[in-house]
Amino acid sequence: MKIQLLVAISMITPGLLCAQSPRKDVQKLLDEQTAAWNRGDLLGFMGGYDDSPELTFFSGDTVAKGWQATLERYRHKYQAEGKQMGQLSFTDTQIDILSNDAAVYTARWHLAFSNGQKLEGLTTVICKRTGSGWKIVHDHSS
Amino acid sequence: MKIQLLVAISMITPGLLCAQSPRKDVQKLLDEQTAAWNRGDLLGFMGGYDDSPELTFFSGDTVAKGWQATLERYRHKYQAEGKQMGQLSFTDTQIDILSNDAAVYTARWHLAFSNGQKLEGLTTVICKRTGSGWKIVHDHSS
Repeated sequence: MKIQLLVAISMITPGLLCAQSPRKDVQKLLDEQTAAWNRGDLLGFMGGYDDSPELTFFSGDTVAKGWQATLERYRHKYQAEGKQMGQLSFTDTQIDILSNDAAVYTARWHLAFSNGQKLEGLTTVICKRTGSGWKIVHDHSS
Repeated sequence: MKIQLLVAISMITPGLLCAQSPRKDVQKLLDEQTAAWNRGDLLGFMGGYDDSPELTFFSGDTVAKGWQATLERYRHKYQAEGKQMGQLSFTDTQIDILSNDAAVYTARWHLAFSNGQKLEGLTTVICKRTGSGWKIVHDHSS
């Protein structure tokens, strides 16, 4: 009976039901990336980015183009000699679903390091539904 | 005859015809903003931003929330005593249409001042089709 009702509702209001899914998917992407970062799993974190040469990562005045260049930037910045990844968290996260296949989220990112140092900044991230699920196609962090 | 043909094509391929319009509209928004800036018309430039308290402008580590706060930031930065607006241009502009009502463009911005000083940086801009046409709802410039 419940299943029949759900099917009936989904036939009447497919847009309404679909509209809830992207938000959850994007939040999951963000949560999984954060968890990967905080266990020091950079490749797991990078799994949130679209594995494409078209991926763009803007950081301050610098552009990394493509998944591999983005990975190298992170390695250089957080895994080079004497560097650490720290603990990542976000505040003021706003997810805006732009279509059934595209979304943007904005947030303030925070990194806390074991030596007490703290960094923070702003991020604007474009996500798209790809053949491999929701992935980041553009990241602008400053 | 030509009108009939156009009507017939638009009935067959409405998606195709609609899909070309957002790109032109977003490019027009960008062109009009640039022209307004370069004639020193800050309010004209601000006409490209959604006149809403929900507008967000990220610049480096600073958030301006709402149209008015965004205007005040521009006034403080480019129209205060001894400041000038300079000449604005963009390179590497990429417009990505995310739906019929939403788009993102990314670019490198350049400002050239009469004293020879030059500034440049990166921008990621979310635009939406509103009741007043295409407007910027989020700008992240660094």
